[in-house]
Amino acid sequence: MPRVLVVNGPNLNLLGEREPGIYGDQGLEAINRSLSALGRELGLELEFFQSNHEGAMVEAVQQARGQFDAVLINPAAYTHTSVALRDAFLASKLPFVEVHLSNVHAREAFRRQSFLSDVARGVITGFGPDSYLLGLRAIASFLR
Amino acid sequence: MPRVLVVNGPNLNLLGEREPGIYGDQGLEAINRSLSALGRELGLELEFFQSNHEGAMVEAVQQARGQFDAVLINPAAYTHTSVALRDAFLASKLPFVEVHLSNVHAREAFRRQSFLSDVARGVITGFGPDSYLLGLRAIASFLR
Amino acid sequence: MPRVLVVNGPNLNLLGEREPGIYGDQGLEAINRSLSALGRELGLELEFFQSNHEGAMVEAVQQARGQFDAVLINPAAYTHTSVALRDAFLASKLPFVEVHLSNVHAREAFRRQSFLSDVARGVITGFGPDSYLLGLRAIASFLR
Amino acid sequence: MPRVLVVNGPNLNLLGEREPGIYGDQGLEAINRSLSALGRELGLELEFFQSNHEGAMVEAVQQARGQFDAVLINPAAYTHTSVALRDAFLASKLPFVEVHLSNVHAREAFRRQSFLSDVARGVITGFGPDSYLLGLRAIASFLR
Amino acid sequence: MPRVLVVNGPNLNLLGEREPGIYGDQGLEAINRSLSALGRELGLELEFFQSNHEGAMVEAVQQARGQFDAVLINPAAYTHTSVALRDAFLASKLPFVEVHLSNVHAREAFRRQSFLSDVARGVITGFGPDSYLLGLRAIASFLR
Amino acid sequence: MPRVLVVNGPNLNLLGEREPGIYGDQGLEAINRSLSALGRELGLELEFFQSNHEGAMVEAVQQARGQFDAVLINPAAYTHTSVALRDAFLASKLPFVEVHLSNVHAREAFRRQSFLSDVARGVITGFGPDSYLLGLRAIASFLR
Amino acid sequence: MPRVLVVNGPNLNLLGEREPGIYGDQGLEAINRSLSALGRELGLELEFFQSNHEGAMVEAVQQARGQFDAVLINPAAYTHTSVALRDAFLASKLPFVEVHLSNVHAREAFRRQSFLSDVARGVITGFGPDSYLLGLRAIASFLR
Amino acid sequence: MPRVLVVNGPNLNLLGEREPGIYGDQGLEAINRSLSALGRELGLELEFFQSNHEGAMVEAVQQARGQFDAVLINPAAYTHTSVALRDAFLASKLPFVEVHLSNVHAREAFRRQSFLSDVARGVITGFGPDSYLLGLRAIASFLR
Amino acid sequence: MPRVLVVNGPNLNLLGEREPGIYGDQGLEAINRSLSALGRELGLELEFFQSNHEGAMVEAVQQARGQFDAVLINPAAYTHTSVALRDAFLASKLPFVEVHLSNVHAREAFRRQSFLSDVARGVITGFGPDSYLLGLRAIASFLR
Amino acid sequence: MPRVLVVNGPNLNLLGEREPGIYGDQGLEAINRSLSALGRELGLELEFFQSNHEGAMVEAVQQARGQFDAVLINPAAYTHTSVALRDAFLASKLPFVEVHLSNVHAREAFRRQSFLSDVARGVITGFGPDSYLLGLRAIASFLR
Amino acid sequence: MPRVLVVNGPNLNLLGEREPGIYGDQGLEAINRSLSALGRELGLELEFFQSNHEGAMVEAVQQARGQFDAVLINPAAYTHTSVALRDAFLASKLPFVEVHLSNVHAREAFRRQSFLSDVARGVITGFGPDSYLLGLRAIASFLR
Amino acid sequence: MPRVLVVNGPNLNLLGEREPGIYGDQGLEAINRSLSALGRELGLELEFFQSNHEGAMVEAVQQARGQFDAVLINPAAYTHTSVALRDAFLASKLPFVEVHLSNVHAREAFRRQSFLSDVARGVITGFGPDSYLLGLRAIASFLR
Repeated sequence: MPRVLVVNGPNLNLLGEREPGIYGDQGLEAINRSLSALGRELGLELEFFQSNHEGAMVEAVQQARGQFDAVLINPAAYTHTSVALRDAFLASKLPFVEVHLSNVHAREAFRRQSFLSDVARGVITGFGPDSYLLGLRAIASFLR
Repeated sequence: MPRVLVVNGPNLNLLGEREPGIYGDQGLEAINRSLSALGRELGLELEFFQSNHEGAMVEAVQQARGQFDAVLINPAAYTHTSVALRDAFLASKLPFVEVHLSNVHAREAFRRQSFLSDVARGVITGFGPDSYLLGLRAIASFLR
Repeated sequence: MPRVLVVNGPNLNLLGEREPGIYGDQGLEAINRSLSALGRELGLELEFFQSNHEGAMVEAVQQARGQFDAVLINPAAYTHTSVALRDAFLASKLPFVEVHLSNVHAREAFRRQSFLSDVARGVITGFGPDSYLLGLRAIASFLR
Repeated sequence: MPRVLVVNGPNLNLLGEREPGIYGDQGLEAINRSLSALGRELGLELEFFQSNHEGAMVEAVQQARGQFDAVLINPAAYTHTSVALRDAFLASKLPFVEVHLSNVHAREAFRRQSFLSDVARGVITGFGPDSYLLGLRAIASFLR
Repeated sequence: MPRVLVVNGPNLNLLGEREPGIYGDQGLEAINRSLSALGRELGLELEFFQSNHEGAMVEAVQQARGQFDAVLINPAAYTHTSVALRDAFLASKLPFVEVHLSNVHAREAFRRQSFLSDVARGVITGFGPDSYLLGLRAIASFLR
Repeated sequence: MPRVLVVNGPNLNLLGEREPGIYGDQGLEAINRSLSALGRELGLELEFFQSNHEGAMVEAVQQARGQFDAVLINPAAYTHTSVALRDAFLASKLPFVEVHLSNVHAREAFRRQSFLSDVARGVITGFGPDSYLLGLRAIASFLR
Repeated sequence: MPRVLVVNGPNLNLLGEREPGIYGDQGLEAINRSLSALGRELGLELEFFQSNHEGAMVEAVQQARGQFDAVLINPAAYTHTSVALRDAFLASKLPFVEVHLSNVHAREAFRRQSFLSDVARGVITGFGPDSYLLGLRAIASFLR
Repeated sequence: MPRVLVVNGPNLNLLGEREPGIYGDQGLEAINRSLSALGRELGLELEFFQSNHEGAMVEAVQQARGQFDAVLINPAAYTHTSVALRDAFLASKLPFVEVHLSNVHAREAFRRQSFLSDVARGVITGFGPDSYLLGLRAIASFLR
Repeated sequence: MPRVLVVNGPNLNLLGEREPGIYGDQGLEAINRSLSALGRELGLELEFFQSNHEGAMVEAVQQARGQFDAVLINPAAYTHTSVALRDAFLASKLPFVEVHLSNVHAREAFRRQSFLSDVARGVITGFGPDSYLLGLRAIASFLR
Repeated sequence: MPRVLVVNGPNLNLLGEREPGIYGDQGLEAINRSLSALGRELGLELEFFQSNHEGAMVEAVQQARGQFDAVLINPAAYTHTSVALRDAFLASKLPFVEVHLSNVHAREAFRRQSFLSDVARGVITGFGPDSYLLGLRAIASFLR
Repeated sequence: MPRVLVVNGPNLNLLGEREPGIYGDQGLEAINRSLSALGRELGLELEFFQSNHEGAMVEAVQQARGQFDAVLINPAAYTHTSVALRDAFLASKLPFVEVHLSNVHAREAFRRQSFLSDVARGVITGFGPDSYLLGLRAIASFLR
Repeated sequence: MPRVLVVNGPNLNLLGEREPGIYGDQGLEAINRSLSALGRELGLELEFFQSNHEGAMVEAVQQARGQFDAVLINPAAYTHTSVALRDAFLASKLPFVEVHLSNVHAREAFRRQSFLSDVARGVITGFGPDSYLLGLRAIASFLR
């Protein structure tokens, strides 16, 4: 049974409380529960990781090698500033899908730059919590 | 039963034949069949439109007002050059999802600019034909 | 009696319905009626053309040579993306006035660039349907 | 009877003498006379102000509050360099129309930037002295 | 006997009449006759296509696959704005030569950017109608 | 007893009336009274100067040499356009503090550039009339 | 009694020892003591936090929600590189004041960009340890 | 006997006192005396004008038409910010020479841009008070 | 009989040995022989010059004045860096054709800039040794 | 005996496993052993530190003050994004050498920017593990 | 008696023949004669050097050390492309004056960049052959 | 025994005399002696070449093919301006190491661009004469 690591970046621990106009009112736990349910349906085993620390995210991706078959990641703010996370994915060689809750194209200009998108399998942006579910389906599809 | 217009832009009529290394070897018809099947499953009625003409795409979007509840669009090359298509969506006020077969972030620099992304509901990039299916699911989800 | 061709670009067929907050609630036909009335007053014969197709607009301008004395054009989205329309005017050598309903300077950055303005006689921006009427007066004035 | 302040910026006192190839051979007084005539026709009372001093123009706009219903301005060189004039308009909240004798889009690149256009009601460019007359008509129209 | 499609873009139907100072006074038909004569000499069969519509040019290139061995194209204004035409060539995999009548390097800055040059076999610029003849010779040479 | 010149730039004479959403509803006189009161408390003698004229501000700064120990300045619009004011400070060698009522970082892009900040002792931005009071305290502190 | 969290970013633990020519010779503890004294005077309760870790600063800001009424922050190097810190403030909705010891406008170009300034209440730059004291006064003022 | 107007811009009234490291220790009067002496030698009649006001400089240039044969100008800070001064010279059609005391190429980047240099007869930079004398010689030479 | 100087720039002496994947495997001598043969056919007398020295190329172009009727040049690396060569052509007033073996548009970004193209008669790029032959034909054509 | 701290940044713990095509197949431990051997030969005492955390690296550099005479650092991804690390070096005043395994000039454009290079003693790029050894020799040399 | 080396760059050997509209019709020899005459008057001994070779100019400047007291240089095209010449002056430490015949500010954009101006004593531009004479006077003045 | 060509670019013949603050006080001959000594130790045969002429450096690199196994080069000013040298290395296919005496990252912005670095094996910057010695060691290492 393929295993998927779900990684959430900085400030996503506040989901549901933080700027609901932009990010929706569903907490990270609720999203994780929906993901687990969908994972079971798709025959995928999921593990969850959240951190506000760039270094901790780097290490989560490093340690995923050999343990997981793919990564579903919402890198949040580190999307735009972390070359270290990019390098961790390049080093781990794990396929990953980048998701965003909000439509980053419709916000500040600096959110349009990503250090991850061009090395990701694909990117899903703007569907709120559904971005995660769609991302997991994308993973299920290419792992087959 | 909600209705979705599926719009395909220039050169997508060649899908399957055109640069399979980048776009996959599935033709547009095969994709449309998969979409129809998924549409039935999700309770959505689908109609399909493809054109190589910017003006014809503009008019398809204009005429979708009142006839459809959402648009699923792969604008292909016009993503990067058509303000008219953007204006058609702004005028039609229909929610739409932008999808791309290939990972546009990993190609020529000019493919990173979109005149549509910031007015789309969301964007899905890089999963080959699955980009369409995920896009349809996204639509099904926000139409509920 | 001098003849003026009035050309309207993409999505202007939706005028009145489309984003009234930006473009006003007057339809293109109502504008054309006002223009006709003013044309009679100014001793100008008018003909009207609208298209969502760049190529069709190019050809309308080409064919205006010898048939018309000036062009009044709201190039809409093609203002910002059509070198072909610019070349059609350079080729036709017809004097033309560029008009815009909304204040393009107060909108997205890409609307500040025009491929036509520097080869136009003059530009009128931001007065809603009055932009057309003022443009026609400008033409009447320099045709004298 | 609505009142309109007509403001002319630096070097426009030389109109008629200065670079007639670009600005025409009509002096400022002649233009003002045409404006007065048109004002009477349109039911508008006009007052005229010209200065080569940025500060004096700022103060003219400030003092127009409560005294005038709109401003017709050819800011000339200060179009491109005066944030103070922009702020004066923002502070005065008076609607204003920006006019230019020459087609600024067809001249030096720095003349394409305006600190006023995006806060103006509209902009009229390139018709020589007619730019003023068209601008006054535009004001008459929106004051109604 | 190898077959070559000669494609001419927008406003080239006006050749000879349009800006003779820049484009020369020879019409498109005269150029085509010279090309036919040279084609016979070089053992190439030629077919001619001109359009002012981006979409029509895209489809001409698409349909050239299997029917022609190479394309000789003067994309005119679409050189600078059409990603769709680029994609049509990438999809068709036909070798093509890009030609321009005038020296695009010596004109407006935006004419220096081409969406086609880097995927063309080669580019010939500035020799008037001779640009076409030289382009056909280049094709004859690499088809051998 | 150290002397401080308080300089206010263009349009600040309208304070309280001008865009209260951005600049607050306190007039310049009220601010000056608060400053005087605080000056007495801090043992500083204050003099006030406001002008809408760049040249007048330049001369105020020039004449402050030898007469004052420091300058508290809200250069308003001239912050972004006046090299002459910068040069006046460089020539006068007087230490000065630059203050702004509104948060210039959250407004138009051109307000983020200052010709004064890098030669000022320090900059205080965004606290409404308190910006002046804090600026005066800063001066009191470094004059000690 | 309102509570204020004082946050200091990377390398500020070295204050007093580090580049005294730029940052002054007062240590962080001395600054905190001055702040405490001023806090008591202004009726504010203060807590202090310093970290060299971006993630730890993010979490300090997150946890300040509900515990504090405002944040006084010297983000040091993370000013210029941390979108995560910006997002933490956006999520926490706490008003905050950004302070800098040195005049960042007079140093390397990259220090002129801040990811925080436009979402801060205000910014104080260049007064050495006084920047903190002035920032605290600003907070006291707007908390009233 | 040809007449030359010598115009000095903002802050040059402080010459000799202001930043002697950059501008030298000779006052403006001393420079003018040297110029007068040299003028006599070269057979030129000189008049002197200094102002800190952009508008006043504009008017000095305007009024020089018909009164003077050439202008020798050190526009100081207005070199970099005044389009109005450029327009005054374009309107006056007087030949002028632009001089600078310091080497503007070796100072802040914004001092490298001039709104006057490309319409000046020539530019002399970096020789301290000698820049004026050399400029006067240049004028004497082309007036012959 | 018209005379043409064929100039080859730096590293072209290595042709055939150097990066055959990009430049082909034909040596410069072979190309020159083909050119001589074609020259005879076209009634042109040819002379050949190759140098790795910018100054020597400048002088070859200078000395061509009066001796030759046109220049066929592959400036190689100096295309992108030599203003001196541009000036030599401007001074010599000789018509010249710029040719490149490889498609410079498809290589490093800096190869897309040319100091010569806008002053050349025309440019031929990407056809290997045929670029020279086509260039010679172009010269033959405009010398007629 | 001088002491050198060897600092390795994010993802270098994976050396040998990570992208061997770019970084070589030697692990960090093997490199450290070579460094130790060379250190003994050069009379230097070495200590090693690796972290994926920007903050931890900042603190390692801070604590090196007084303990070490120089730092040999491969900052990896933080080269391009960490102002904090730059500030730590500025604060510590320790001389340091920046090394990179791969040739960063031949990779993605963002790897060409370094926040450390201009404050480093020197930089060594592209020699694989030898970059470290050469860096240590450089340190040995300037510590003498 | 102070000695001055006069250095002329590429294509200046053609002076008088080359583009007289821009550079005047006086040859280099005539200029040199005028310079010699003026040199005698000013008590300066002159030597002349012209080359089209960057390297030769570099060496002329190198060898001027110890032999000459100043250099008068018209670097022509190498102004804009030669870092080597800049380095030669930095190495030689000789004061030099940069002169240009034409007004480089009024020509192609690339002529506005100079690698020499910021390290020159001063720059004289646009006076034709007089630029040299004024430059020599400037040298005479600062050598005193 | 492998052979290494040591190439030194413009102005390096002045080493020791030229700006010792930046380049050190060791002459080129002294450096060459150290290199020879180290070459003997490493089993490498060295030859030395210095030129101030770009073309001569190009030819030295060309002729090194077949004669040498690697090149150690300090391209000095040509680093930033010579595409011809880059092409010579691409043509010669010889591995080379680029060295700089000074830390180019800490000097003028234009020194940060190199036309050679991305095609070099590696780059060593900032260690004075030691840069050469380290570069030779690097060559010795990869030639093994």
